[in-house]
Amino acid sequence: MLQINTQRLLDNLDSLAQIGATADGGVNRSAMSPADVEGRRWFKDCVNDDGFEFREDGAANLSAILKSDVPNAKTLLLGSHLDSVPNGGRFDGPLGVLSALEVLRTIREANIQLPFHVECISFTDEEGSMLALFGSRALTGKLTAESLSQSRVGVDKLREGMTRLGISEESIKSARRDPAFLLGYLEIHIEQGTRLEGSMLDIGAVTAIVGIRDFWLTFSGRAGHAGTTPMDKRADALWGASAFIQGARKMVPAKFDPGVVNVGNLQVAPGAFNIVPGEVRLALEFRHGDEELLDQMQDDLFQLAEQVAEDHDLKLRIEPVGKFAPSLMDEKLLKHIEAAADERGLKHTRLISYAGHDAETIAHVAPSAMIFVPSAGGISHNPREYTKPEDVVNGANVLLGTVLRLAGKS
Amino acid sequence: MLQINTQRLLDNLDSLAQIGATADGGVNRSAMSPADVEGRRWFKDCVNDDGFEFREDGAANLSAILKSDVPNAKTLLLGSHLDSVPNGGRFDGPLGVLSALEVLRTIREANIQLPFHVECISFTDEEGSMLALFGSRALTGKLTAESLSQSRVGVDKLREGMTRLGISEESIKSARRDPAFLLGYLEIHIEQGTRLEGSMLDIGAVTAIVGIRDFWLTFSGRAGHAGTTPMDKRADALWGASAFIQGARKMVPAKFDPGVVNVGNLQVAPGAFNIVPGEVRLALEFRHGDEELLDQMQDDLFQLAEQVAEDHDLKLRIEPVGKFAPSLMDEKLLKHIEAAADERGLKHTRLISYAGHDAETIAHVAPSAMIFVPSAGGISHNPREYTKPEDVVNGANVLLGTVLRLAGKS
Repeated sequence: MLQINTQRLLDNLDSLAQIGATADGGVNRSAMSPADVEGRRWFKDCVNDDGFEFREDGAANLSAILKSDVPNAKTLLLGSHLDSVPNGGRFDGPLGVLSALEVLRTIREANIQLPFHVECISFTDEEGSMLALFGSRALTGKLTAESLSQSRVGVDKLREGMTRLGISEESIKSARRDPAFLLGYLEIHIEQGTRLEGSMLDIGAVTAIVGIRDFWLTFSGRAGHAGTTPMDKRADALWGASAFIQGARKMVPAKFDPGVVNVGNLQVAPGAFNIVPGEVRLALEFRHGDEELLDQMQDDLFQLAEQVAEDHDLKLRIEPVGKFAPSLMDEKLLKHIEAAADERGLKHTRLISYAGHDAETIAHVAPSAMIFVPSAGGISHNPREYTKPEDVVNGANVLLGTVLRLAGKS
Repeated sequence: MLQINTQRLLDNLDSLAQIGATADGGVNRSAMSPADVEGRRWFKDCVNDDGFEFREDGAANLSAILKSDVPNAKTLLLGSHLDSVPNGGRFDGPLGVLSALEVLRTIREANIQLPFHVECISFTDEEGSMLALFGSRALTGKLTAESLSQSRVGVDKLREGMTRLGISEESIKSARRDPAFLLGYLEIHIEQGTRLEGSMLDIGAVTAIVGIRDFWLTFSGRAGHAGTTPMDKRADALWGASAFIQGARKMVPAKFDPGVVNVGNLQVAPGAFNIVPGEVRLALEFRHGDEELLDQMQDDLFQLAEQVAEDHDLKLRIEPVGKFAPSLMDEKLLKHIEAAADERGLKHTRLISYAGHDAETIAHVAPSAMIFVPSAGGISHNPREYTKPEDVVNGANVLLGTVLRLAGKS
């Protein structure tokens, strides 16, 4: 059975990890930073050295293309991203891009003719240092002027970064691909969780990428003297907020499993030892793979917040911050992934992705699927992020097998 | 029955409130600020115009003295403070100083000879803009170089402020009084709570000033991805912290009433929507009038925090920040206050003070007591702080009556 070149893939991963390397073994390669620019140049050199067609689109997405001779062939995209979070790890992103590149090399070396083009693509700013899923959104034509204005760093800094990559608001439009020519999208990624490792499995076939909703909840009561205000006369915003956190943390696993909830930040005003908190603002996020259940979670969480506000003599204000719809992966691609794993004697399971990925964007315009490999301890977005070499290789071989099966060559 | 001059007292309060006045009817007269210096000058002019002996000690405490002719007479202190919190009200402090000055005037006008000196004193920086209870601690000899180093603004800013008032680390020492010559201390203050108003009472006889303890509690868990980390595998520091707040808020009123507890601030790290909180630092404060119960509250709260840490897979670190011992007021003085109120047909009750006052410091060296008058709505440290003219006058007359009773003249 055809196999990828193990050593070449591992060497590639090592080489890329030197760019933006941190002292603790991680990488600092935020999108549009100088280190990101260096990483992109490294990738371009690889593609050129390999002799693949290199392509850079108007959103600075980088591609290596293995052309098919078939007239009017569609394109199968394989990829992920080269950028990292600040002080991140070396696998989140590069694993998907370099495995894809290795699959292209292996197919070409085996002299296999495919009925579709295969394109290894690295999407710009998946992590959102400037604007999350920048490249994949541009490819689907959904990166509008309005989206640019929502950059977390402000539109001026985003524009500076775009200039550094040689792109503009105008050029982004040209990055859109006609879905009629897209056969599908496959992405390998580390699980960033412990479900595979915990069950001693090799491969995860991702059925859906969760929808995510973010809100600021503000509970307002009355600031007061922490000595003289009787306990039963206080409108203590932090008392209410803590009741909400307790309630949400209990309700979601009981009622919405496998949905998850997080209160990731909380700010108290005025914020002194001797003043009863007058206002608390908390950052609420919840995720689910099913849109209807996500709606119901939202209703139930808001109802809980309103009840807490009433019980604690507080006012409640809710501000939407972000909303990402769940994305369903393609059943046909999933079956091919499972069959490719079976062929290689690898144990696999279906699971949902609790993290966002470029595949969630591409899934809106073309059949998409993801292959997860185990993350040691589930650690991610952290210099200690680690995936064993055999798991890296297994993932790349399953990707190879999936492509061959799609081409009817396996 | 001898009465103070109502109009003169109210006029004095109005005049002083012009100094550092804010647009919303409050005052901004933080200790050692230019407005504080102006307020002090105004007070000195009043004392000189009245023809009382004026005294300014090495800690910049200001006094008006009504001398007794009796050889080796002791001194009865009556007072409070002229400084305010930033954007504070016009009653917290000035009420006690100006009522005392009015009592001196009334006694002298009535030509009553007392067997002790009566000294109206305004203590420096009661509120702690620079260093809380600065003046009263200096008078008891407890303002050491070490205490100065604990200034919330840093010792350099404190020294600048002290220079503005013409005092120094050296001069502070001379402010200490020999307790053998102190007969006692009486202070009128607004209640800063709603117990008197709520029960339609005129006067509160303060039995104790609460002890206060402040701690930073830090719960440390593991920061993690808010999607991929399973809910039952999270070591969520904010989940633990909120359980502690709920528990403390329930335990203290149930078990330690009239003790009170507050979590006045809470800081989350890393603090993003999509990251499970790895560390939470919370500002815990609790108060009680009884030292033994304060010890027990501390034990129970720490035990609760340890239990919460264990239940939520967190580590706990506790750092002491401040500790103020409870002060018991003098029973003999309390009885005189109650009798003086009864003589004037005023309804009174005994209560504890949940706020700190100069009397808590002086109580360590001389018999002390406080007279509370109602605060409208309990509002204090706020421009809307208000006490009705009749309540102001009632308080001053009870102070007058208490002094006369102590002298055997009533």
